[in-house]
Amino acid sequence: MRYEPGPESEDCVGAAFAVDYRHRLVFTRDALDPSNPALADAFGSPADRPHRLLVFVDSGVLEAWPHLPRQIAAYFGVRREAFDVAGDLVVVPGGEGAKNDPLVYQQAIAAIHDAGLCRQSYALVIGGGAVLDVVGYAAATAHRGIRIVRMPTTTLAQADGGLGVKNGINAFGKKNFLGTFAVPWAVVEDFAFLETLSATDFRAGLSEVVKVALLKDAALFRALTERAPGLIARDREATETVVRRSAWLHVDHIATGGDPFERTTSRPLDFGHWSAHKLEQMTAFRLGHGAAVAIGLAIDVLYASEVGLLDESTARLVLDTLASLGFALYDEALERTDELLAGLEEFREHLGGRLTITLLRDVGEPVDVHTIDAAAVRRAIDSLAGWSPAERSAAAG
Amino acid sequence: MRYEPGPESEDCVGAAFAVDYRHRLVFTRDALDPSNPALADAFGSPADRPHRLLVFVDSGVLEAWPHLPRQIAAYFGVRREAFDVAGDLVVVPGGEGAKNDPLVYQQAIAAIHDAGLCRQSYALVIGGGAVLDVVGYAAATAHRGIRIVRMPTTTLAQADGGLGVKNGINAFGKKNFLGTFAVPWAVVEDFAFLETLSATDFRAGLSEVVKVALLKDAALFRALTERAPGLIARDREATETVVRRSAWLHVDHIATGGDPFERTTSRPLDFGHWSAHKLEQMTAFRLGHGAAVAIGLAIDVLYASEVGLLDESTARLVLDTLASLGFALYDEALERTDELLAGLEEFREHLGGRLTITLLRDVGEPVDVHTIDAAAVRRAIDSLAGWSPAERSAAAG
Repeated sequence: MRYEPGPESEDCVGAAFAVDYRHRLVFTRDALDPSNPALADAFGSPADRPHRLLVFVDSGVLEAWPHLPRQIAAYFGVRREAFDVAGDLVVVPGGEGAKNDPLVYQQAIAAIHDAGLCRQSYALVIGGGAVLDVVGYAAATAHRGIRIVRMPTTTLAQADGGLGVKNGINAFGKKNFLGTFAVPWAVVEDFAFLETLSATDFRAGLSEVVKVALLKDAALFRALTERAPGLIARDREATETVVRRSAWLHVDHIATGGDPFERTTSRPLDFGHWSAHKLEQMTAFRLGHGAAVAIGLAIDVLYASEVGLLDESTARLVLDTLASLGFALYDEALERTDELLAGLEEFREHLGGRLTITLLRDVGEPVDVHTIDAAAVRRAIDSLAGWSPAERSAAAG
Repeated sequence: MRYEPGPESEDCVGAAFAVDYRHRLVFTRDALDPSNPALADAFGSPADRPHRLLVFVDSGVLEAWPHLPRQIAAYFGVRREAFDVAGDLVVVPGGEGAKNDPLVYQQAIAAIHDAGLCRQSYALVIGGGAVLDVVGYAAATAHRGIRIVRMPTTTLAQADGGLGVKNGINAFGKKNFLGTFAVPWAVVEDFAFLETLSATDFRAGLSEVVKVALLKDAALFRALTERAPGLIARDREATETVVRRSAWLHVDHIATGGDPFERTTSRPLDFGHWSAHKLEQMTAFRLGHGAAVAIGLAIDVLYASEVGLLDESTARLVLDTLASLGFALYDEALERTDELLAGLEEFREHLGGRLTITLLRDVGEPVDVHTIDAAAVRRAIDSLAGWSPAERSAAAG
């Protein structure tokens, strides 16, 4: 008998398929109060056995919330029929250092192994963006990916970083050189965590809110401009309003932007980020991500104004808004302009393909450009050095 | 002004989205002959700059094909307008050892970094399944995933492993503990590579062809049974026919099986694999994957017959076919039956959720079961120990 070949009679065959994802986003307060069902509900109903989970906590969060281990035990203790907590709480050093030290990733992997988690188990991770990133990378690579429920605890992570479908660690001196794209099972935002942040950490996330507002939502930008005094005074209602809106805009962008796993070169949410990434590295992370993004946004709106894309008055309003939120818009690292400009090529290499930088034509009107005029960047930085907020006292008063 | 919230006025929001993938499969011979366009075509037309690629080669392949580096240089040398080969050929130690030594992965990552590859660049990897897995894992995690073009060089990798959407390395003594799901840019199968394989390596992949035939294609199983003499004589036409069909069935399963990234517990293509994985580990990889799968299939068809799912005559036909392809169906490791049975729980843990084992009701009729009767497994192994091929001389003659 001669075996009759099937569709493989052609020498070149292709198969197309799609994979469905769901991103869940939950807003709450005091998530670990045993009477609050929001966190438990985010896992969904267990199928034939209780949800097995391992809990990771940022060391910085644990310092501010020393009763957290007891609360976690109590929360899942009253839900024993639905949850099986595997192993002890894993404490992960907070801050960017966690992403620079490969051992932190190795320890997270080992904890997942030791707890006997399987691909249907969960890592529940409570912390700032760096801890979410490193534990997320461990969860994405153990067993080719276990589920992860993130509880971002900083303004930055709640407004931006904690919502993304990325994870990673730094390597070869490059931010996020190693990582994957992976959609979290759920993101649970507990606003109570914001209350113990330092003023700097509280402020940090607001630059990402300004960013997403400039790209996508003129009304949110107006709210930021007008409510800046309330935000720096950490007014609860003002904070929750802008953080919720920012979080939702990020998730909506992932779901509807057409390229959640960034296979093309356009990354509109990276507005202001080419210089921000480089500034973090140039200052050995003395400038945190939020502070660096504020400067990056200032450079890119002044640059857009220099090259005639954006009204100078709009650029100045962006600078005033950032300043009224308490951001310093100049740093001595900007004097090493050649080194900063090298960040453009590193940004291109990380994204791949040709250089793509998102700029603004107006608030809510982003535009991608593929060349950057170094001389105009230098003029933008000079103009930033000489800039002083027109209405700082009025806005902050 | 009060900022009017958008859809985030609810405390729990979700966003659903789908990601599209395309799996390309190319069959050819003498792919690196400069006049053969198949490999170059698999990359597609370059956009605004030449395709940047780094080439990885299995040390075993290089030994059998010492002129390969010169051929690769010549192939891309005549296509300089479309290809930019970055860095020197990276030689990767062949065989399962490459997945056990974390340094091999680290070196692949470093090579990608040093060559300055970006997310739109390519890793071209020529080798057996282990090398494809470790380089695939490096490519999937560098820059959160660069593109990969695989050229599987063994029967096993061409018929099965090289087609999958997985990659990974071993850790904590567990096969594939670390890895990701990632769809290759293309898989280019060059049948000429099969000609220098040892008899053992050539045979190894045929057990996976038997597996996929038993699950999905009774006609392919008949072809294997009837053409076994030609296959062990390495008849070119017989080999290409069954390898092509097996490769296509694997790609078709990924594209149409409904769960390419294995988020549920069913993995029908893992038929015969719970014991195969464990046997490889129990024998410290003295038994290769293909040889272990042949034994695993034999155990599972005898088990299915023991529990009344499968006709005994069909089970014996499967054993005869495997034997006529030259596989040994018994190994002394089977005497450590308790240790082997522990592989069931490891298999469950790796997949997650409840135990799911695929068995057969008939050729082409798989069925999932969720419990395995240890006593019946012991009887199946006893019966395998006492089994001798009814028609071995007839089939092999």
